Amino acid sequence: MPFHYSNCVPKSDSNATEDILKAAANPNVISFAGGLPAPELFPVAAVKKATDKVFDQYGQQVLQYAGTLGYPKLRKQIAQIMQDRQVDASADNVAIATGSQQAIDLVAKMLINPGDVVLVEDPTYLAALDVFRSYGADLVGVAMDDDGMQMDDLEQKLAAHPDAKFIYTVPNFQNPTGRTMTAARRERMTKIADAAGVPIVEDDPYGAIRYAGEMLPPIKHYDHTGNVVSISSFSKMLAPGLRIGWLTAEPAFLKKYMLLKQNADLHTDNLTQYIISQFLMDEDLPAHIKKITDVYEHRAKLMLAEIDREFPDDVYHSQPEGGMFIWVEVPGNIDSDELAKRCLEANVAVVPGSAFYSGKAQPGTFRLNFSNMNDEQIKVGIKRIAQVLNDLGAE
Amino acid sequence: MPFHYSNCVPKSDSNATEDILKAAANPNVISFAGGLPAPELFPVAAVKKATDKVFDQYGQQVLQYAGTLGYPKLRKQIAQIMQDRQVDASADNVAIATGSQQAIDLVAKMLINPGDVVLVEDPTYLAALDVFRSYGADLVGVAMDDDGMQMDDLEQKLAAHPDAKFIYTVPNFQNPTGRTMTAARRERMTKIADAAGVPIVEDDPYGAIRYAGEMLPPIKHYDHTGNVVSISSFSKMLAPGLRIGWLTAEPAFLKKYMLLKQNADLHTDNLTQYIISQFLMDEDLPAHIKKITDVYEHRAKLMLAEIDREFPDDVYHSQPEGGMFIWVEVPGNIDSDELAKRCLEANVAVVPGSAFYSGKAQPGTFRLNFSNMNDEQIKVGIKRIAQVLNDLGAE
Repeated sequence: MPFHYSNCVPKSDSNATEDILKAAANPNVISFAGGLPAPELFPVAAVKKATDKVFDQYGQQVLQYAGTLGYPKLRKQIAQIMQDRQVDASADNVAIATGSQQAIDLVAKMLINPGDVVLVEDPTYLAALDVFRSYGADLVGVAMDDDGMQMDDLEQKLAAHPDAKFIYTVPNFQNPTGRTMTAARRERMTKIADAAGVPIVEDDPYGAIRYAGEMLPPIKHYDHTGNVVSISSFSKMLAPGLRIGWLTAEPAFLKKYMLLKQNADLHTDNLTQYIISQFLMDEDLPAHIKKITDVYEHRAKLMLAEIDREFPDDVYHSQPEGGMFIWVEVPGNIDSDELAKRCLEANVAVVPGSAFYSGKAQPGTFRLNFSNMNDEQIKVGIKRIAQVLNDLGAE
Repeated sequence: MPFHYSNCVPKSDSNATEDILKAAANPNVISFAGGLPAPELFPVAAVKKATDKVFDQYGQQVLQYAGTLGYPKLRKQIAQIMQDRQVDASADNVAIATGSQQAIDLVAKMLINPGDVVLVEDPTYLAALDVFRSYGADLVGVAMDDDGMQMDDLEQKLAAHPDAKFIYTVPNFQNPTGRTMTAARRERMTKIADAAGVPIVEDDPYGAIRYAGEMLPPIKHYDHTGNVVSISSFSKMLAPGLRIGWLTAEPAFLKKYMLLKQNADLHTDNLTQYIISQFLMDEDLPAHIKKITDVYEHRAKLMLAEIDREFPDDVYHSQPEGGMFIWVEVPGNIDSDELAKRCLEANVAVVPGSAFYSGKAQPGTFRLNFSNMNDEQIKVGIKRIAQVLNDLGAE
């Protein structure tokens, strides 16, 4: 029997993210497509140790239902993490989410009515675009450059859309571009948003994974009016399989969040919240992050060097100082999907840039991930892409 | 700065479920309010053993991102559970959810446009009502009796609302009434729904927890057209803190589910999926369920006996054969919220019936949970309620 789906369901069954994961599973393919952390760096033994302790001390509690906003001790520990990032937050400002993806989804559900305008960086995180579309948002792209979202363009877009519901930004090592918004722009952005009366939704899963340049405070640091909702996660700095993210916002906002969070899954997995809390108590998270960033730095620098040597000279690439991604722009009018298809035929997976745009995509763009492949794979994979680019240039 | 919330957010901050949990936390209060399993029955040692094995065998995998529909081995094991319940299902018919609550939420999001009619039992699970309202559903109640939803009334309501998007039902030991739909009605319901072209969403978290009468097949058993989406969970038969539920449906339906599930949280906690899978392999789940149901049977029978002895003769109560709840209807026109307030003043918590109705609530109703209190608490708590009822009768 045919179901009559709501307007929340995409008309097409095509699923870019799932297709990427499938392609990456083929052992012949070198995949720069996913956004996966390097699994060999997961602190399995330490997480196991924390888990054993949790069962010994809190066996019954972790298997029982729990509060919707999250394990109070973990919320307090996260508030400390946010303070270390120069955000003035207490446990009352923190709510747990089932991964930062859920925080994006529920904040979108809280704010978007069908037809509402949401301002996004162009390009930006594709699963956020999917979420905003599912609630019927009218997406308006704001231009970027190597310093992140362009504030002049933001002002123009806000003037054109004074009723915009919020501005979505990934300020650190943005997905897909790897670009970072400067401190000056962060501060200016909060002023622009305040003046327009439009909230900022800051999505910061990568900020801790910085291997070059100076650590910048989140946009939330510059917020003096409660106008910024800041989302982050343990996925990149610890382990994504545990699905623990959070948002930092005013208690009045979290009160509304709680209503929808309760509808969504009652609360986030209790065992996992306790495990992360125990890990934070017993282990040295900054030391673990240092270990990750050292490896990612090596891989990023290697990939950038290979790109500089192998790719045609007129090809642009971003210069990330952290995170997991490099963004590539090939001049001319090459269809991005066709380009990615050619790469896959050459046994190397990239994500075509088309997936990341709110509207018309810039042609000849793609995203490269460097966190999940070893040196040899990076060298061979970049050579394969270079061959595709050279072939396209010769056609 | 004030946020402009969407229509998905309830105008009122009042939150019945959270209020219940808060009241239950006061140590002076005997709480029949929650829907919590008995924590002393959680198989902590066995879950810990399973967890250790998972870390030893799959340490890196469980900490990494994973597929959206769930851990393939667990989906296969759940398909076997569904087959044991006489539902013809393979792993392709099963998708994991972050608790059955998420399955309810996403199925609702998949089907409801603002203004769409959803048919529900009156009364029914309050967090489902909240979900349906969040997507703008127009809720229409269908009458119940001790044999579950009344099929004649369902036919009338479908005739009056031919465009209804789905029928939501909790067939086993319903929340809040504890009532079970007869096998004859289940079969008839699938025929009625097929004829009307309206899907059934079956929510069955309690079905395995049966201590009297005969096990009945889920409504999905009678479905020959793919018109029934059946939702279930490990929360009541194993542990709710782990947040693992599932839905059983046609692959075409799950393809759409996957798109929204990806938006919602990418995938459910991977570690917990592996833990439950390992538990199912190594432990005897039916034996564990038997242990739970024996205790719940004892508590239910004790509570029913106390009610029969202590409550005024003209008070109705349901006769559950499983699950966690007894439903009480006091004759006359007593405000349910006032009644629950009086009980709380007498240090016993119940959930007022008003919370469970889609429209106008039947006065003088409340829900009692028997799974989470010991014998002494049940005896004292029922006496306290009886005193309140006697006082009200004397006023």
